Amino acid sequence: MFEFKLLATENRARAGLLRTPHGMIHTPVFAPVGTQAAVKAVTPEQLSSAGTSLVLANTYHLYLRPGFDIVRDQGGLHNFMNWSGPILTDSGGFQVFSLGKKNDIDDEGVTFRSHIDGATHRFTPEVAIDIQNNLGADIIMAFDQCPEPYNRETNERAMVRTHDWALRCKAAHGRSDQALFGIVQGGIFPDLRSESARFIAELDLLGNAIGGLSVGETKKELQSMTKLVADILPAGKPRYLMGVGSPAELVSAVSNGVDMFDCVLPTRLARNAAAMTRRKQMNMKKAAYANDNRPLDVACGCYCCTNFSRAYIRHLCKAKEILGATLLTIHNLYMLHDMMNDMRNAIIAGEFGSWKRMFEDNIEL
Amino acid sequence: MFEFKLLATENRARAGLLRTPHGMIHTPVFAPVGTQAAVKAVTPEQLSSAGTSLVLANTYHLYLRPGFDIVRDQGGLHNFMNWSGPILTDSGGFQVFSLGKKNDIDDEGVTFRSHIDGATHRFTPEVAIDIQNNLGADIIMAFDQCPEPYNRETNERAMVRTHDWALRCKAAHGRSDQALFGIVQGGIFPDLRSESARFIAELDLLGNAIGGLSVGETKKELQSMTKLVADILPAGKPRYLMGVGSPAELVSAVSNGVDMFDCVLPTRLARNAAAMTRRKQMNMKKAAYANDNRPLDVACGCYCCTNFSRAYIRHLCKAKEILGATLLTIHNLYMLHDMMNDMRNAIIAGEFGSWKRMFEDNIEL
Repeated sequence: MFEFKLLATENRARAGLLRTPHGMIHTPVFAPVGTQAAVKAVTPEQLSSAGTSLVLANTYHLYLRPGFDIVRDQGGLHNFMNWSGPILTDSGGFQVFSLGKKNDIDDEGVTFRSHIDGATHRFTPEVAIDIQNNLGADIIMAFDQCPEPYNRETNERAMVRTHDWALRCKAAHGRSDQALFGIVQGGIFPDLRSESARFIAELDLLGNAIGGLSVGETKKELQSMTKLVADILPAGKPRYLMGVGSPAELVSAVSNGVDMFDCVLPTRLARNAAAMTRRKQMNMKKAAYANDNRPLDVACGCYCCTNFSRAYIRHLCKAKEILGATLLTIHNLYMLHDMMNDMRNAIIAGEFGSWKRMFEDNIEL
Repeated sequence: MFEFKLLATENRARAGLLRTPHGMIHTPVFAPVGTQAAVKAVTPEQLSSAGTSLVLANTYHLYLRPGFDIVRDQGGLHNFMNWSGPILTDSGGFQVFSLGKKNDIDDEGVTFRSHIDGATHRFTPEVAIDIQNNLGADIIMAFDQCPEPYNRETNERAMVRTHDWALRCKAAHGRSDQALFGIVQGGIFPDLRSESARFIAELDLLGNAIGGLSVGETKKELQSMTKLVADILPAGKPRYLMGVGSPAELVSAVSNGVDMFDCVLPTRLARNAAAMTRRKQMNMKKAAYANDNRPLDVACGCYCCTNFSRAYIRHLCKAKEILGATLLTIHNLYMLHDMMNDMRNAIIAGEFGSWKRMFEDNIEL
């Protein structure tokens, strides 16, 4: 049911094809985040038109609301949210630590209080897999501990625990129509990262993720850890860098051999009136756009850019109209998907090096 | 550029065709409200798919933000909001009284403070027409005074003023590609309503509206005033009842000879998790829908009902996802447009009487 084919490589960069039970994913790929089984402010139809192929949903959120039993009874996530393409669920680990109140971690699992009503819940690796089996995504993630990146002792302990939990997740996972990915931890410590990458790689899961980055470390640290880990992970399996979504970081990580990404950035920026382009971010509330009849990005082919002016988008943002968030979400996603496609085509054509130089030359700081 | 043809009548009910510079309007018609040049939570594409033909926009709001000069510079409302179908703007009168702070009315016009920043502005009939000429809608409205409906003295004064202002609006209006409609006032007083209907009818404008209703009077008063006024207004011109949008009131007013309607009801209800059907309103947050895999309305053909379950819509509403408002807006508008089409077809087939009895028998109170 799953197959990953590398179609082309150029230095570390790769163009691939990942077969899933709900369709092919052309890599490198960016997955928008549908936290609560919905990508905020857009319909599945609009997502498709924007070029989305893979959607991420959050196990922690869906476990608390509406509950995994309801999603299961409604035919699983694909049917529930009416998304017939591939879906990935995270393990809930990240949210348990960042959103859950008063979480209490031990080697068996985590006890936490819901951010909605304060009720006590407990996640273990087995629980995280059971929930994800019930949600029914194509790709599911091992339960990991994601600490702040700079304390060596904390990161060492979290890494060991993450490895132990990954073994337990592998043992608990039973559905052959879901691919389980492992997650590498280790903070900003090269030796821990190497050790973790080797351990996770040896589990021989269907894909491998780089976790614990994009959580407060510098760009340089993000890039060097990504490169170090990607070089160790097996070439024949997809590599997934979690939580990265800015154009420059996507290009850098692709050049370091990463195939998959997710991030709330494009959709969150959209709801805050910010448009993304390959060159810069645009604050659409700026007075300069008040009477500007050009599309947001002249070179863009999205529904927003082919139908509306900067003046109108600014008006919607100033007037707090939901349509402003919708149009900017469509644009930001289209823009990222379009850029990923361009990278893929450049890698296949053997021109990624020059493509990347051009991209970097055009960035306005 | 404008032509109104009656295709069929059955007792007082009428099916017609109104030609405008931006396309035909099949009547009876319901127009959703795009207060700030956007129907809340949907794109123009989604509006079209829901069956919308005519959109209303608010002069008061657009005058304050982004300003009529910007809308004009951006090619007028159609171009600004990317709606190629017919548009109607109200005169701003209603909002000046209901939203403007500390408004000060005299026979020449109204001085009011903006609800956004408190700045002082003044509307006169000439100003209201000038703004609407700049906005560029297909149908524009005379500037009127809409008082609370029960005080006879206030309503008599407001009616006389509204008549005087209608004359001034007619004199001020210059664009032949915009149809100016007059507005009948008179509160709940039959003699005032008759006098006002005769006065407005004699102005021989391209259409006539019934204002000052749906503002706090009883349903019985709404219906009897509508019938009284519609009987006086000329049969050969469209009759527009402002501010009405509940299924039962629409059916009643159509049976009394009204052709056009607008109301924020379907879109506002949608943002408050309420779905409309011909039989009842459904509170989509109800626990009963938590695991209900049926569409919102089994008989409905809209994007929401053909793709999503009640369980999913309830989840979106509980989780405060924007998509919940979007899907319910699409459904509520589709439902009303579909009902208007059914009435139109029934009138043309000479079966509106039995259609109306069936409709009324099915309503769940």
